Amino acid sequence: MVKELLRSHSSVRIYDGEQLSKETVVDLIETAQMAASSHFVQAYSVVWVTDEAKKEQLGLLSGNPRQYETSGAAFVFCVDFKRLQAAGKLEGVDIVADSAENVLVGVADVALFAQNFVVAAEAEGYGICYIGGVRNKPEEISDLLGLPDYVFPLFGLTIGVPARRNEVKPRLPVGAVLHENTYDENYDEQLHAFNATMENYYSSRSSNRKIDNWTKQMADFLVEQRRPHIKDFLAKKGFTWQ
Amino acid sequence: MVKELLRSHSSVRIYDGEQLSKETVVDLIETAQMAASSHFVQAYSVVWVTDEAKKEQLGLLSGNPRQYETSGAAFVFCVDFKRLQAAGKLEGVDIVADSAENVLVGVADVALFAQNFVVAAEAEGYGICYIGGVRNKPEEISDLLGLPDYVFPLFGLTIGVPARRNEVKPRLPVGAVLHENTYDENYDEQLHAFNATMENYYSSRSSNRKIDNWTKQMADFLVEQRRPHIKDFLAKKGFTWQ
Repeated sequence: MVKELLRSHSSVRIYDGEQLSKETVVDLIETAQMAASSHFVQAYSVVWVTDEAKKEQLGLLSGNPRQYETSGAAFVFCVDFKRLQAAGKLEGVDIVADSAENVLVGVADVALFAQNFVVAAEAEGYGICYIGGVRNKPEEISDLLGLPDYVFPLFGLTIGVPARRNEVKPRLPVGAVLHENTYDENYDEQLHAFNATMENYYSSRSSNRKIDNWTKQMADFLVEQRRPHIKDFLAKKGFTWQ
Repeated sequence: MVKELLRSHSSVRIYDGEQLSKETVVDLIETAQMAASSHFVQAYSVVWVTDEAKKEQLGLLSGNPRQYETSGAAFVFCVDFKRLQAAGKLEGVDIVADSAENVLVGVADVALFAQNFVVAAEAEGYGICYIGGVRNKPEEISDLLGLPDYVFPLFGLTIGVPARRNEVKPRLPVGAVLHENTYDENYDEQLHAFNATMENYYSSRSSNRKIDNWTKQMADFLVEQRRPHIKDFLAKKGFTWQ
């Protein structure tokens, strides 16, 4: 059942090395494309990295080389307004790609598309892992993959037959996420409850046990600005946030 | 089969009016939450608009009142760093919410979560429509729903039992979207092929027939900057794009 499939998701980081066929990849991408797209702009592109030297480089640049090594395929999912420029040119029009709105549209388009890809892949028994680490070295990765202006890497994705599955991680209580009519800022009770859930999860899972909770993790992670180079990188790519 | 479900998606804009129960909504949200989240930040919130006056207002502000009228439930999906600030405060830390990186993370998190919601809903026989129109009047909608700083509406979503289903729309040829190792800018052939596909689709579908193609639509749509107020709106909400 679809609900059980979606509820059983956990990231897979070690695969058995079996490579996906071109037929499988094309089938997954075509399924992914059926996701909704804002005003039908379809502002996404995917680079499938099959060249071994490039794949190794991508793994080093995004900080998780071993995951790429065992994967059955490795992708970089990109926001793409270059193709929309080409569409405009065919009509004799210079489109306006550079706007805050288009960044929102492009990122949302890529993510809806990617999540459809993931659901289709998991339904076939594959495991996946999103890799935000491509934004650690986005310029180097753009050079590696020949990404032109108006295209930027949003996240990577590895996929393959799982060699090991992680336990499913709990999520925030639904009451912290779902508001009725008016946004409710009273989080303390929910955060304490979720901390207790996560402490229990981290201390009793089958491997990598630790004493930790969610608010501690978030405070440690967000106390400093993450990836401060992103603004300048996007400006160089043509997205100056107008 | 999951693949067939994903491939049969089309937006539904007229519903039979039957209301979703709270149990169904909570179940869909909990399933949606199992999507991957960047560094587990879970930077999303959803406002379920059940108040009739608010729902009417939301429909007017986002430009599609009739769709809200017949829907079984109406939601606004938001990027949320407010809850992460609350998490920081519990730990005595002021988190850095305001960064270009966090806008990317938040939008991607919301969209992965929303697409899981959509797949779960469509598997149960519901139809849905994403509504980017909430970004037409984001300040008014923020006021309507009491969205605090560090929370902004990314898109709306209506859901319900379909009263009418649209045909499934073709998508760009997979070759225009999928690149191997290096980004390929040679789009002309693919764009001409897709224009032929779309001309055929628009001229032969069962209703609302027209003569149109994709590059024309995109050129018309993007010749001017869309939603130029978004940058200032986000700055007011605490996202100054650092």
